[in-house]
Amino acid sequence: MALRVSTSLRLEKRAHQTIHWRRVCLSLEKEQIQMTHQKSHIGPERQQGVQKPYKDMIDITWGDPHRLGMKPISFVRQVIAACLYPELVHNDRFPIDVQLRAQRLLRACEGGSVGAYTATCGIPHVQRNLANFISRRDGGVPSHPENIFISSGSVTALTVRKTLLPHEEGPSKAGILIPVPGFATFHSMLETQGVEMVPYHLCEEEGWALTVEDLRRALQTTRGHCSPRALYIMNPGNPTGYVQSRESIEEVIRFAAEENLFLLADEVYQSNVYAVDREFISYKKVLSEMGPDYSDTVELVSFNSVSKGFMGECGLRGGYMELINLDPEVMGVVYTLFSTLSCPSVIGQIALDIMADPPQPGDPSYPTFSAEVHHNQKTLAHNVRVTQEVLGGLPGVTCQPVMGGFYIFPRLHLPPKAQEQARAAGMEADKLYCHRLLEEEAVYARPGGHYGQKEGTHHVRLCVMTTTENLRELLRRFQAFHLRFMKEFS
Amino acid sequence: MALRVSTSLRLEKRAHQTIHWRRVCLSLEKEQIQMTHQKSHIGPERQQGVQKPYKDMIDITWGDPHRLGMKPISFVRQVIAACLYPELVHNDRFPIDVQLRAQRLLRACEGGSVGAYTATCGIPHVQRNLANFISRRDGGVPSHPENIFISSGSVTALTVRKTLLPHEEGPSKAGILIPVPGFATFHSMLETQGVEMVPYHLCEEEGWALTVEDLRRALQTTRGHCSPRALYIMNPGNPTGYVQSRESIEEVIRFAAEENLFLLADEVYQSNVYAVDREFISYKKVLSEMGPDYSDTVELVSFNSVSKGFMGECGLRGGYMELINLDPEVMGVVYTLFSTLSCPSVIGQIALDIMADPPQPGDPSYPTFSAEVHHNQKTLAHNVRVTQEVLGGLPGVTCQPVMGGFYIFPRLHLPPKAQEQARAAGMEADKLYCHRLLEEEAVYARPGGHYGQKEGTHHVRLCVMTTTENLRELLRRFQAFHLRFMKEFS
Ligand SMILES: Cc1ncc(COP(=O)(O)O)c(C=O)c1O
Ligand SMILES: Cc1ncc(COP(=O)(O)O)c(C=O)c1O
Repeated sequence: MALRVSTSLRLEKRAHQTIHWRRVCLSLEKEQIQMTHQKSHIGPERQQGVQKPYKDMIDITWGDPHRLGMKPISFVRQVIAACLYPELVHNDRFPIDVQLRAQRLLRACEGGSVGAYTATCGIPHVQRNLANFISRRDGGVPSHPENIFISSGSVTALTVRKTLLPHEEGPSKAGILIPVPGFATFHSMLETQGVEMVPYHLCEEEGWALTVEDLRRALQTTRGHCSPRALYIMNPGNPTGYVQSRESIEEVIRFAAEENLFLLADEVYQSNVYAVDREFISYKKVLSEMGPDYSDTVELVSFNSVSKGFMGECGLRGGYMELINLDPEVMGVVYTLFSTLSCPSVIGQIALDIMADPPQPGDPSYPTFSAEVHHNQKTLAHNVRVTQEVLGGLPGVTCQPVMGGFYIFPRLHLPPKAQEQARAAGMEADKLYCHRLLEEEAVYARPGGHYGQKEGTHHVRLCVMTTTENLRELLRRFQAFHLRFMKEFS
Repeated sequence: MALRVSTSLRLEKRAHQTIHWRRVCLSLEKEQIQMTHQKSHIGPERQQGVQKPYKDMIDITWGDPHRLGMKPISFVRQVIAACLYPELVHNDRFPIDVQLRAQRLLRACEGGSVGAYTATCGIPHVQRNLANFISRRDGGVPSHPENIFISSGSVTALTVRKTLLPHEEGPSKAGILIPVPGFATFHSMLETQGVEMVPYHLCEEEGWALTVEDLRRALQTTRGHCSPRALYIMNPGNPTGYVQSRESIEEVIRFAAEENLFLLADEVYQSNVYAVDREFISYKKVLSEMGPDYSDTVELVSFNSVSKGFMGECGLRGGYMELINLDPEVMGVVYTLFSTLSCPSVIGQIALDIMADPPQPGDPSYPTFSAEVHHNQKTLAHNVRVTQEVLGGLPGVTCQPVMGGFYIFPRLHLPPKAQEQARAAGMEADKLYCHRLLEEEAVYARPGGHYGQKEGTHHVRLCVMTTTENLRELLRRFQAFHLRFMKEFS
């Protein structure tokens, strides 16, 4: 027994060392600690009026609607709840189309249960519905269920990309062109996979447009370093909010064809476009209309997810990728990789099914469904407008028009004194700005450096996919802080 | 428009080529086609008496209780349904402890919604509950939430292992000792990751025991080939059903310490032990009791999952690993890798929470919960007994006693004529056997070769985690087929 206790203590000590190390490691990423210890308090606790020893933190570092107080779509939650607990199917509180949908989905599950494994690329029924959705979205361009690979969230699907990019060192090391500014999670994921990242700059002066000149410039930097194989594009852009026009997409496709680059089109914000003069057009649709020289040859992967769009269900983990024109051999590699991945979350797959096939006019759930979706869309568009107005009135802030997505990425023209102080502290001025914003106003936002920005420029990313009330409070604090900060260093 | 149509057709053609290729590729894995086109028809459709053009297939290739007709645990499904659709929390049909649990879990979710991202290693509240569960299981040995990494199912966690095993070629290429027979999915996953697999044989004659002599023998084969870094163990075993004794575990730990091997203990069947004279003891508990020379040094990762155990929720995707004694640097790599993975399914995390902290005596849900769990346990134990009895009465079949897990892995002593015919067809005799079993009785099982077996021996894996009625039908078909097969080739 004595032995037991003493070794337990040793294990305990050891574990504490581990924890200690972990703390040290985390303190490097100081922000992470904040994440763990202070929860975002926009949410139910706040509404319950619980007193906190510190100001409620507003965490806008994630593109995560529910975290920021947005409500889930009832139809989505009702169908999933009914699939989980089929007795609810006969619950009169749930509309008949909820019941029918749940029954249909359960029939598509092995053993009639969401608790069974599915095929590793997803439930064939859901793959078919996604193919129909894509085809409808693209005005009839055919889509084939066999080319659709479902995964537990699009980031997981992204990891699959690595198979597309063989590992080699030296000048033949695979390179991938990535946008700057861009989606940092994806970049850090690529980093762990031994792929050379070749940044291309988006043009802030033109509203963060993606131009072929910038792609060419990036390509030139790779000479002798690595061999570029793929081009990653986010449309709509994160954090930029830029949405490409048809002409812009055509140009990029032509460029990819000339340079023999694999196109990775991250289109997860495809149904979050609110600019009046711009609509989302998929890479696949444009490709299909460019004639066989392109439509039969350019390799394309397109990503989508239930984390964004009208439902914002980040925690359910549902995403897919569609593979087009892939070399059969590569297709084989992807298929093999998926077959070692085990199956994607069934709940995420159900959410995808609803994304692909939402209630239609005439369905009992339609009025509520469309009112909820419309409300979210209106809120987002309104928030973007209000935020741009507020930002437009602040000294030292310029902001490009935003066409889609969840974010606004204003440029901060920070006073030389602030830049000096930041330099003395060994950081960029926008990082100092964000640290102070967190300390003083408990607003947690990430500086432009996190997403990448041109040397000498500074930015901050704001997520505006939140309730109108939260946004008001966010802007109130942001404005107060910004004026104070600018004054202090002027 | 003409252009549109024609390119659409081209895309269509192209897609069909892809499909064609896919078919060809699949036909290599002939079994997969069966999977896609014939669904398992043990399940609701069968109960509804739907007529099928073919005999209902019994698919026992997966360790998937719900697929095979087992019922979910009500408490699990009620809590998750209530988390998804909080109005149900006030549904009088759900017991009060369901409501309280759902409220507690929702408070642990950002924004009070299961639709929000969580930390990449999981919800801290769930990590804490898992640590308490592990510590209770191990008689008080401390467990620390910070060492617990939650993922979307344990297979995903398994992929993380690769970081533990640096890639190199030649004699310094990382090697991992893996059991034969073993868990094929894991093996094929490792294959894609450039790790050298070093098989060690389990001793069939001793009930598939794991012996240190066999580990040593395996290690000797690596000389000059690769450098062994890790030892993978399944306890309880899949497909063997063997459960290690304390002495056996101690021996393995001593071996790992001597040879400086990292221990990977796959303990996903830890609550599926039914032998009267054997109980599950975790590697961690044994390690903690072996004195500081071991408990402070041997690196150990232990895996667990909601896919097995009392709930069998494979589709929800919830698993975790606990890391013990890891080098802080390696811990850093794992942490970084997780932080690029995005978050695990929130629904899977809720299932883990319930696994860690199930209803207790006195709770309103307890009577139903314990009756359901008890029923499943009794069914499994009963199925194992009945299957062993039936197998024991068949000519040319020998079967080791089974102590835990979902499977029975009998040895088939097939007639020389069957072996000749198989050889002529370029396959092993147990593969021929399984093909014929599928063709003639629509029973889909995998041959021993899929899991690995000693040259010249033949086996088949049966999953017995199914309802008593399904098992009866399965055994009826299996028996009829086996007798016919043996007679045909005698
Ligand atoms: C451009 C982009 N792609 C992918 C993702 C991740 O999506 P998921 O939640 O499906 O992994 C995000 C999340 O913010 C994103 O901004
Ligand atoms: C030994 C073993 N480990 C892990 C798994 C996979 O578990 P999960 O569903 O959590 O990925 C299985 C599934 O059969 C298994 O047998």
